[in-house]
Amino acid sequence: MLFAIIMAGGSGTRFWPKSRRNLPKQLLNLHGDATMLQQTVERIAPLVPAERVFVITGADQAEATREQLPELPSSNIVAEPCPRDTAPCVGLAAEIVAALDPDGTMIVMPADHVIRPDEAFRRAVEAAVAVVEDAPGSLVTFGVRPTRPETGYGYIQRGEALGPRDGVAVHRVVQFREKPDRETAEKFVASGDFAWNAGIFVWKARTILGEIRRHKPLLGAALDRVGAAWGTAAGPNVLAAEFPEMERTPIDKAVMEKADDVKVLEVVYDWNDVGDWRALRPLLPADEAGNAVRGDVVALDTKDSIILSDDGGLIATIGLDDVVVVQSGGATLVARRDQLDKLKGLVEGLNASGHGSYL
Amino acid sequence: MLFAIIMAGGSGTRFWPKSRRNLPKQLLNLHGDATMLQQTVERIAPLVPAERVFVITGADQAEATREQLPELPSSNIVAEPCPRDTAPCVGLAAEIVAALDPDGTMIVMPADHVIRPDEAFRRAVEAAVAVVEDAPGSLVTFGVRPTRPETGYGYIQRGEALGPRDGVAVHRVVQFREKPDRETAEKFVASGDFAWNAGIFVWKARTILGEIRRHKPLLGAALDRVGAAWGTAAGPNVLAAEFPEMERTPIDKAVMEKADDVKVLEVVYDWNDVGDWRALRPLLPADEAGNAVRGDVVALDTKDSIILSDDGGLIATIGLDDVVVVQSGGATLVARRDQLDKLKGLVEGLNASGHGSYL
Repeated sequence: MLFAIIMAGGSGTRFWPKSRRNLPKQLLNLHGDATMLQQTVERIAPLVPAERVFVITGADQAEATREQLPELPSSNIVAEPCPRDTAPCVGLAAEIVAALDPDGTMIVMPADHVIRPDEAFRRAVEAAVAVVEDAPGSLVTFGVRPTRPETGYGYIQRGEALGPRDGVAVHRVVQFREKPDRETAEKFVASGDFAWNAGIFVWKARTILGEIRRHKPLLGAALDRVGAAWGTAAGPNVLAAEFPEMERTPIDKAVMEKADDVKVLEVVYDWNDVGDWRALRPLLPADEAGNAVRGDVVALDTKDSIILSDDGGLIATIGLDDVVVVQSGGATLVARRDQLDKLKGLVEGLNASGHGSYL
Repeated sequence: MLFAIIMAGGSGTRFWPKSRRNLPKQLLNLHGDATMLQQTVERIAPLVPAERVFVITGADQAEATREQLPELPSSNIVAEPCPRDTAPCVGLAAEIVAALDPDGTMIVMPADHVIRPDEAFRRAVEAAVAVVEDAPGSLVTFGVRPTRPETGYGYIQRGEALGPRDGVAVHRVVQFREKPDRETAEKFVASGDFAWNAGIFVWKARTILGEIRRHKPLLGAALDRVGAAWGTAAGPNVLAAEFPEMERTPIDKAVMEKADDVKVLEVVYDWNDVGDWRALRPLLPADEAGNAVRGDVVALDTKDSIILSDDGGLIATIGLDDVVVVQSGGATLVARRDQLDKLKGLVEGLNASGHGSYL
């Protein structure tokens, strides 16, 4: 059986002031009619029934997550006791799946990516599941064809072509490379051998658990203790005791870079990890001057800007170019688009500057 | 006796969103502890007792004006039935003064200029009054030494030196020149013969009324009908009937450019007509990056900007340079400083764009 695991953690600094500690990106309706989390669930729904969709989130966000997903069984929203990066998160999900179906296959995906069209995504999922059924020991990742030398993403180097499966190209993975410098990224893109790591994985629960046990035995043992107690009265206590002690490490580094049978599917849908306000612009309807505008806005001689008024007030701009103006929850951000990398630092400094109420 | 006439009209577009239709610039506390109107009254108070200080304002603003000046007799706040530029305004004030003291001298001054220090201003007023007492037919204007080829001001060309009076240089006026182009302004400044027209005048009420009658006989006659009724029960009705029919013309053009005995005093105080947000920056305390900041603001890598948070919310900026961010009354302006000339047009368009509530 196929299970869907939606990783919905995240701290919510990059979409401040709209995102807050208890309201990270995936819980926001940044574009369209639903939140990114809801869109993620809808995207997989035709392939996976609600009772096999699990959302792993933070304790702070579990309540809001349940409210946004009334169609899921409440117990399918699993709150991590504390953030421990993706390896413990994926391992916990695999234990849950394996407890329900020892031969279960799972797709792991982030809750905060924009993917279009949904059909192309589902075709890729079906192809990945077929690859895993063909070779149950495979770890399958999704690779996005890079369109620019982005330094903020991880890259996957493709090796031997294994031929298309259900019309989707499948390659062996040579290596994973975390965020490269600009020069390296340019080489990657020029080579044609590299794909962006979309952070989406398909595998048998027992396969990934076996790989975790092999490469991270302490983590594997802790996960197995949680798995053994899962579904019993002791489950929550065991999770609360074990999880904070687990190694804080990403699944890419902990397992994927070391495993033998790693394959990459070349996916052909539009993909946007919506890293910050910049990434939102192409997703919102733009006026003729290239402005993405929402709410009550008057933009005079303004271009290529993002202007969102969420609090009901009027925002009037004159002469802006490439600026982000966002008003939400009583706070207003005005930032040059090319300096948005500094937003994380600004938000992290709010507590120290006496503005903790805006976190 | 000396009377003070404070011209406090103005529509309040250039300090939007802080200024509104019923709350123009002079009623705002833009810097310091008092509104510009209150500062103007305080500045002249040591020379003119409250009962001889008159404020001419618009009907929309009379109530707020009275509230800000509780020390003045309520009837000294005079509401124009409609805006008619400065000649009818000055003439009305002169009629009021002449009715109280046929030999009265009056100083006319705008309510929305910043002048520092107050003592230097009062020394100039005393010198001007002395000039008028020496030659009661004089019209005396205040000229500010220009510090840049400003194209937004009027200029006064000095002629024959009449020698200092009480330590203040006095010249005959050769001509008034309205806002010149850049090249002309540069010539004016280089010549050393031109001063900025500060819009402050000292004269006998009967002198200016005589000049109005001579150069604008219809206006003079209408003013005289208002003056004859002033202080009687019919006064308000006569004003309401006559004023809207008066010619809409500035006093400079209607009289000053044509009168024979016009003199200019060279004043030596700091003067700022606070034309818009730009002019405010040097008046506010600046941080080390040259930002003028008020309210709850976090400015990261931001310089030479004006950031005012009036509504209690937080404004956070990243990477701005020469930008004005003002939040007041539920509206937020974000404008490049070098494009603030467009603010007037933006505000005038608010009604058409369905934002009349922000006027």
